[in-house]
Amino acid sequence: MNIVITGGAGFLGARLARQLLEQGTLSLAGGAPQTIQTVTLVDRAAPPATLTADSRVRAVVGDLNQLLDASTQVVRADDALVFHLAAAVSGECEADFDLGMRSNVDATRALLQACRKLGTSPTVVFASSLAVFGNSAAQPLPAVIDDRTLPTPQNSYGIQKFIGEQLVADYARKGFIRGRNVRLMTVSVRPGKPNGAASSFLSGMIREPLAGVRAACPVPPETAVALASPARTIEGLLRAAEAGDAEWGARTAINLPALKTTVGEMAAALARVGGKETASLIDWTPDPAIANIVTSWPAAIDAARARALGLLPDGDFDSIIAAYLSENPRTAPGAATQ
Amino acid sequence: MNIVITGGAGFLGARLARQLLEQGTLSLAGGAPQTIQTVTLVDRAAPPATLTADSRVRAVVGDLNQLLDASTQVVRADDALVFHLAAAVSGECEADFDLGMRSNVDATRALLQACRKLGTSPTVVFASSLAVFGNSAAQPLPAVIDDRTLPTPQNSYGIQKFIGEQLVADYARKGFIRGRNVRLMTVSVRPGKPNGAASSFLSGMIREPLAGVRAACPVPPETAVALASPARTIEGLLRAAEAGDAEWGARTAINLPALKTTVGEMAAALARVGGKETASLIDWTPDPAIANIVTSWPAAIDAARARALGLLPDGDFDSIIAAYLSENPRTAPGAATQ
Repeated sequence: MNIVITGGAGFLGARLARQLLEQGTLSLAGGAPQTIQTVTLVDRAAPPATLTADSRVRAVVGDLNQLLDASTQVVRADDALVFHLAAAVSGECEADFDLGMRSNVDATRALLQACRKLGTSPTVVFASSLAVFGNSAAQPLPAVIDDRTLPTPQNSYGIQKFIGEQLVADYARKGFIRGRNVRLMTVSVRPGKPNGAASSFLSGMIREPLAGVRAACPVPPETAVALASPARTIEGLLRAAEAGDAEWGARTAINLPALKTTVGEMAAALARVGGKETASLIDWTPDPAIANIVTSWPAAIDAARARALGLLPDGDFDSIIAAYLSENPRTAPGAATQ
Repeated sequence: MNIVITGGAGFLGARLARQLLEQGTLSLAGGAPQTIQTVTLVDRAAPPATLTADSRVRAVVGDLNQLLDASTQVVRADDALVFHLAAAVSGECEADFDLGMRSNVDATRALLQACRKLGTSPTVVFASSLAVFGNSAAQPLPAVIDDRTLPTPQNSYGIQKFIGEQLVADYARKGFIRGRNVRLMTVSVRPGKPNGAASSFLSGMIREPLAGVRAACPVPPETAVALASPARTIEGLLRAAEAGDAEWGARTAINLPALKTTVGEMAAALARVGGKETASLIDWTPDPAIANIVTSWPAAIDAARARALGLLPDGDFDSIIAAYLSENPRTAPGAATQ
């Protein structure tokens, strides 16, 4: 089996690739396990050398729209599975509306067209987002979000992801692809550097202090958030690819499970796992632009469809931090980070 | 005030234009009544001569995408209100996926871009559709649809209209336009000829027999449908333009009110209003392709937001037929139709 991952050099994409290469086989859409022959990583950035060192990895580097416009073979005749993770992030999309439309709507549609042209109905796992749900005074969100809650996005990223879900659903209904719409929760703790996502601080406020660096938290401690660890997130994406059509059910998106916590509880967990001095490196510096986006997202998710697929949320944030530390060993405060 | 109607030569567009020209003024978005200076009708077909005879009417004839691509002034600097009714209909979109995407998604987006470029935040009333709701075995519709029911379209037309709603909502949120998403019910009785809409027969089965012509009904008599007369539909579109932002509320779409009836009850009403012989001109000829689309639509609508705006459904189908007959006097069976 040949697999494509857009956004394949990003944190989630690369982690997903590593997991696939490690397990070596995958049961696609309820079928028997098949050997994974190639994993194509499509991204504006080159994938990490640890991945390209594997002979099964193929890298396609460039802007997804440009690659597809230029008829570069992003998906090839024998690709059976595409994880579409590439996207402009929420902060970027709010700052530059047209960039978001191009990166999240046009690129998704062009990718689906490329899949359709294969004529083989490949499986497409589309990474949608919790950000399709937005709270507003005119239309408050229900206390708990479930798989049938009407999305009312309050930012362009959420609208664009929700449009992507509709495209995937209809391409699937027409038989052009087998579609899997999966809404990712906010992933924390992400390693690496901050990005333009409004939710970036939800990793940074843990990651930076653990490296001895101060980090800003732009929302008040009582802000409730719905989080998933990188491991649970990858598990959800893989399960979407593995589920058979009947098991998967409706073409509408499923919400992945989330741990409901607050930013204050996250800081308390950091103090417990990393020490009080570490937690004191968090600066509580309000940023209304970020807070407006993040506080419009829901915090309580009833992920019934995901649960029926055997997917569960993380147990507590302490364990998430501990897992992050075991994968990203702590450097001494002040030491250069890798 | 200057007003644009896309699909302005169509039945609803022309009727809306006539109504606007007749009343001569409009209170836009909660403001004071303003004199209507021009009504621009944009359509692939030329508007009826009865409309172009009015000096306030301006006709722009052509394909909407091509007009906008060619920078033809579809909307002009002083246009304050756009009714976007132009669309490929449900049957066409199901038969030709790419045509539907172009006509319903690309054209809507291009029109919104043209409005955005004005820099004046014009009001855009977007005619969405009941077809955003679709019933399926994997995800049955609730017994009653309300304004917060999750749309699960089961045809491309419904998906494309729902994507249009999302675009209108986000363009409105960004302040590029003032947005009004309005879901039209199936309009019956439409005068004129059958069109490519899967719901076309819901007018044809009344209109053709009244003209002494046989007509096919492709679904069983017990099929439940949600209908609105042309008059109630135009009333809904105008109310959307008139409502102030606070009165209108959320940027998500409102469902217009609908009369819940069945195809069998429609035939019975035809027998009562038009005579038994007239009703006997209906041929009950099942057509699975049409039935699949139409029976996936909901029949029971709780139009709470519309009701709060003072909009009510038609009282009964007999009155709808009577109103049709008063506007389209009956010709003798066998006489040439106009």
